[in-house]
Amino acid sequence: MLAEFSIIPVGKDESVSGLVSLAIEIVRNSGLEYRVNSMGTVVEGSWNEVMDLIKRCHDAVRKETGRVVTSITIDDRAISGSRIGRKIQSVEEKIGHVLKK
Amino acid sequence: MLAEFSIIPVGKDESVSGLVSLAIEIVRNSGLEYRVNSMGTVVEGSWNEVMDLIKRCHDAVRKETGRVVTSITIDDRAISGSRIGRKIQSVEEKIGHVLKK
Amino acid sequence: MLAEFSIIPVGKDESVSGLVSLAIEIVRNSGLEYRVNSMGTVVEGSWNEVMDLIKRCHDAVRKETGRVVTSITIDDRAISGSRIGRKIQSVEEKIGHVLKK
Amino acid sequence: MLAEFSIIPVGKDESVSGLVSLAIEIVRNSGLEYRVNSMGTVVEGSWNEVMDLIKRCHDAVRKETGRVVTSITIDDRAISGSRIGRKIQSVEEKIGHVLKK
Repeated sequence: MLAEFSIIPVGKDESVSGLVSLAIEIVRNSGLEYRVNSMGTVVEGSWNEVMDLIKRCHDAVRKETGRVVTSITIDDRAISGSRIGRKIQSVEEKIGHVLKK
Repeated sequence: MLAEFSIIPVGKDESVSGLVSLAIEIVRNSGLEYRVNSMGTVVEGSWNEVMDLIKRCHDAVRKETGRVVTSITIDDRAISGSRIGRKIQSVEEKIGHVLKK
Repeated sequence: MLAEFSIIPVGKDESVSGLVSLAIEIVRNSGLEYRVNSMGTVVEGSWNEVMDLIKRCHDAVRKETGRVVTSITIDDRAISGSRIGRKIQSVEEKIGHVLKK
Repeated sequence: MLAEFSIIPVGKDESVSGLVSLAIEIVRNSGLEYRVNSMGTVVEGSWNEVMDLIKRCHDAVRKETGRVVTSITIDDRAISGSRIGRKIQSVEEKIGHVLKK
């Protein structure tokens, strides 16, 4: 399944890139396929793989701040093979253009 | 922690209340504190309690349909005791009115 | 249409109930149907009614803090009449129990 | 401000790439800065620019199906200049690596 998540530390600085970097390092070392965008991170794996990873990211940020709001959106579809790049390709084929990622 | 979640079956009927009922029954039998609103369900518990419950709900709906989109928002704060009712009370005290729930 | 929204001030105190109260007062005075839950507020109205209201809430919080993250989920269905209470009733009829709101 | 949005047609096919393509064409023709990821589209602009665009995308999909669930997350920060690429650069500088986008 695909899952996008974002972690917001509440009650710290407006700039959260330091804490977000902590989480991204955990994602990079997880071995799961991932893509970072300017609003969140998309990962691909089984429910347990993905949720274990998000928990570790959440806990790492939570350890540094007293309140964390984490949002997760899961897209789980009965289809074989990786979808992290294929969903965008499928749209690109329909519109006949390469999209900015 | 508090978590609100909603499960959307994609590619079935527009009316999803039958599949949503499946999930709500699992929530009711979980023993966790919960509240149902017209856009999702809020539950309170530890990360593992909450995520195990959401997984069971997601899997039950996913078994009935080929694609499911599940959204989860977690509010995790270093504060003791139940927060599921207290967050609203805290707002009510500030505005001096009881709110519609 | 139905829309649930939540507004998170980033870079202020962990306790956000003061700023949330600001927004709730705007909702109460809007004349739209609404329900408050412990993770957000559900409102019912047309796209413009709902989005104008959310913009006013967002702006009021944003004026008090340098960064705000606002989440909105819209459920727009071709069906007549109010849905803010009816969605839950529909589930209650299926499971044969009144739910905690 | 930055906003990520995704539009889910409910009660149609599991495959939604046709309807999503409709929306992406509207985004491409809007003149706003945007990036497409496998879970949504990020756009940058003022509240009115962004919300007018999302409304047109939502309406285009809604015209083709009886129920649509649209999710929007807004990150609004008092900082000058474009942030759509800068947020990721800021994380990349901290971790010393270029990220997959």
